Amino acid sequence: MEEKKKRNVIVGQSGGPTAAINSSLAGVYRTAKDRGYDKVYGMIHGVQGLLQRRYIDLSDHIKTGLDEELLKRTPAAYLGSCRYKLPEISEDEKLYEDLFKILEELEIDCFIYIGGNDSMDTIKKLSDYGTVKGSDIRFVGCPKTIDNDLALTDHTPGYGSAAKYIGTSVKEIIRDGWCLETKNGQVIVVEIMGRNAGWLTGAAVLAKGEDCDGPDAIYLPELPFDVDAFVEKCRELLKTKSSVVMAVSEGIRTAGGTYISEMGNNVKYVDAFGHKQLTGTARYLCEVLAGELGCKTRGIELSTLQRAASHCASRVDILEAFEVGGAAMKAADEGESGKMAVIVRTSDDPYGSDTAVKDVHKIANDERMVPREWITEDGTYVTDEFLTYVKPLIQGDVPPIMVDGIPRHLWVPGFQDLL
Amino acid sequence: MEEKKKRNVIVGQSGGPTAAINSSLAGVYRTAKDRGYDKVYGMIHGVQGLLQRRYIDLSDHIKTGLDEELLKRTPAAYLGSCRYKLPEISEDEKLYEDLFKILEELEIDCFIYIGGNDSMDTIKKLSDYGTVKGSDIRFVGCPKTIDNDLALTDHTPGYGSAAKYIGTSVKEIIRDGWCLETKNGQVIVVEIMGRNAGWLTGAAVLAKGEDCDGPDAIYLPELPFDVDAFVEKCRELLKTKSSVVMAVSEGIRTAGGTYISEMGNNVKYVDAFGHKQLTGTARYLCEVLAGELGCKTRGIELSTLQRAASHCASRVDILEAFEVGGAAMKAADEGESGKMAVIVRTSDDPYGSDTAVKDVHKIANDERMVPREWITEDGTYVTDEFLTYVKPLIQGDVPPIMVDGIPRHLWVPGFQDLL
Repeated sequence: MEEKKKRNVIVGQSGGPTAAINSSLAGVYRTAKDRGYDKVYGMIHGVQGLLQRRYIDLSDHIKTGLDEELLKRTPAAYLGSCRYKLPEISEDEKLYEDLFKILEELEIDCFIYIGGNDSMDTIKKLSDYGTVKGSDIRFVGCPKTIDNDLALTDHTPGYGSAAKYIGTSVKEIIRDGWCLETKNGQVIVVEIMGRNAGWLTGAAVLAKGEDCDGPDAIYLPELPFDVDAFVEKCRELLKTKSSVVMAVSEGIRTAGGTYISEMGNNVKYVDAFGHKQLTGTARYLCEVLAGELGCKTRGIELSTLQRAASHCASRVDILEAFEVGGAAMKAADEGESGKMAVIVRTSDDPYGSDTAVKDVHKIANDERMVPREWITEDGTYVTDEFLTYVKPLIQGDVPPIMVDGIPRHLWVPGFQDLL
Repeated sequence: MEEKKKRNVIVGQSGGPTAAINSSLAGVYRTAKDRGYDKVYGMIHGVQGLLQRRYIDLSDHIKTGLDEELLKRTPAAYLGSCRYKLPEISEDEKLYEDLFKILEELEIDCFIYIGGNDSMDTIKKLSDYGTVKGSDIRFVGCPKTIDNDLALTDHTPGYGSAAKYIGTSVKEIIRDGWCLETKNGQVIVVEIMGRNAGWLTGAAVLAKGEDCDGPDAIYLPELPFDVDAFVEKCRELLKTKSSVVMAVSEGIRTAGGTYISEMGNNVKYVDAFGHKQLTGTARYLCEVLAGELGCKTRGIELSTLQRAASHCASRVDILEAFEVGGAAMKAADEGESGKMAVIVRTSDDPYGSDTAVKDVHKIANDERMVPREWITEDGTYVTDEFLTYVKPLIQGDVPPIMVDGIPRHLWVPGFQDLL
């Protein structure tokens, strides 16, 4: 009798970490197990690590239902991530041969990759190569990015939790900013991630409500940024408010295409090795405001806090991340390849969503921006349409499992040294 | 028959805002009402605002039990704050006369001031002046500061919530930092508040647990900081770790007394008006590390987020803040003046605390530092004694009252314009 062939899965994470990417990993794992797969391998640091044969058997790490719940609540990529773009097949076929050899050795049926644009490019190339070579390995992508800039999906897992954190933190910053009066007033510039797409910066509008005016202006990278107009806007606002809060994207640039973060060029530190370091966007704008208006300023970068704040995650986001991970695994199990699982919004109010599967060739390397009509005409705020879009995505909480007053994650200290 | 004299209270907030100061305000209000006081006035922006006759009747704002609960969960000073130090009585007696005239007009019996060192100086001076003038107004202080540097109290309300936020955020930063491998490794420098006292920076140790190594080093302002030794420490750590996280106080300085934040002096931006702006501590250290080690760096300032993060408040902190506000009010009602309510720790494990009343003359203008023996001998970490001290203060949560996915606060938009 022929030995029953192993049915194995390998899953990886790629690109910038989020608060929801591990919930997708848990979704892939759960669905693979429910569908009777033998091994679920996790590649360490994505395909880059896989090429170095770095992987783990996830069952060694996810042993109980509690472990699965902890994994859903653990921020950042549990498996490690990479920013690695596969070469074109024509450029380095050897690399593809090596990779497929590893997959065959591990008896892989399904290859799931959780990530953003570059990761979907990886799925596209691997499935193309597999098709050409007649491989029966299925390659399916699972969307992930706080930037929310992936095409064909209503939104991306990770975005909702980042948006919730941004709305919550901007509101707390507004509250704090008002407390202390200063002679010429104060401007707080909050710098938010999103180099090209303004989805995250726009989420600052969530601070607005019956109990809060919200930020005084919001500047997305989709429109050219005018430093003088920004200064004038602050000058006007300071006439009636003692504390002004401006939300700006890290990616804002002038009509000429110069990043504001580069305009502090003369502020660079040149070390003994000749390395230059540019100031940040918020910092530069604060320096200009202090000079022009003589007001107190404070630049606040939400930095990696906004993508790692599991303690403030959105329930809708974490659950959808889990579901879409499961949908990607299900699609691969059912024979799909070269596809990405996506989220389809079925209704705004009451909010409803479903998953579907789309052709990855139509997704990879395409960046989805905030529509012009969701930004006010003067370019200094987002519209109600934007709010209607984002609001359902931040609903509900995922209370951390607290141990000794601090959220518990699924992690073993020293884990990274073993890999 | 003689008209019954009104029994009124006035309460103010002063110094840097915290996530717990409004819980103390709620405690003062509740106890005053329970003890039968007629009016509870709130001074807007502390004594500075009171001198301009800016105050509100708190009953116009706290109308229901839900309002009280919201107030406990609202970060930053609800009444507004000030950084105003009263002159010596001998320097400007007129100011004291004016202030007491306002208090008499408002028929004030009890004056409660929630704040830190400078605020206790205010209580001291006003009670001294009152004693000299034979006034029967009682002046009592209620402690507040995230810095935890007030003498005679075991700890200050506001510290526990800031510590919980710092521990949680540093843990999330560590998790995020590991994800992406870089050629020469990465050092993340987290800059934490506390100009002179290292209580907040030391709280980074809370990230450490069964599931986390914690930060790789912690530098408090109590000890001199050596930039070269810091660079060497990072160089050593990078030999075995791909991502290193260093927690530093904003107030670290060299043996010669130069703030590290001032060492980026040549990095200053000089605007058209000749204003200079210094770089931050984390930023400067990152620039040095990038130059010396050629590694990737990221500076993260927790900024005002750490003092305003009500969404991550400690239950012990919020409840103690409420209790100590009530204790201050009770003391004033019972005839005490020139005193501050304090927190007394009765036990570490199980944690227990009580309130007491101390003479404000022994508190004002005294800064309490982290004891040398709670810092490791090499000065790069805190000891288990520090951990035993801080751990009880971050226990338990105060779930925000969520409305539409965002924490609700007690606030009316435009409130500040009315005042």
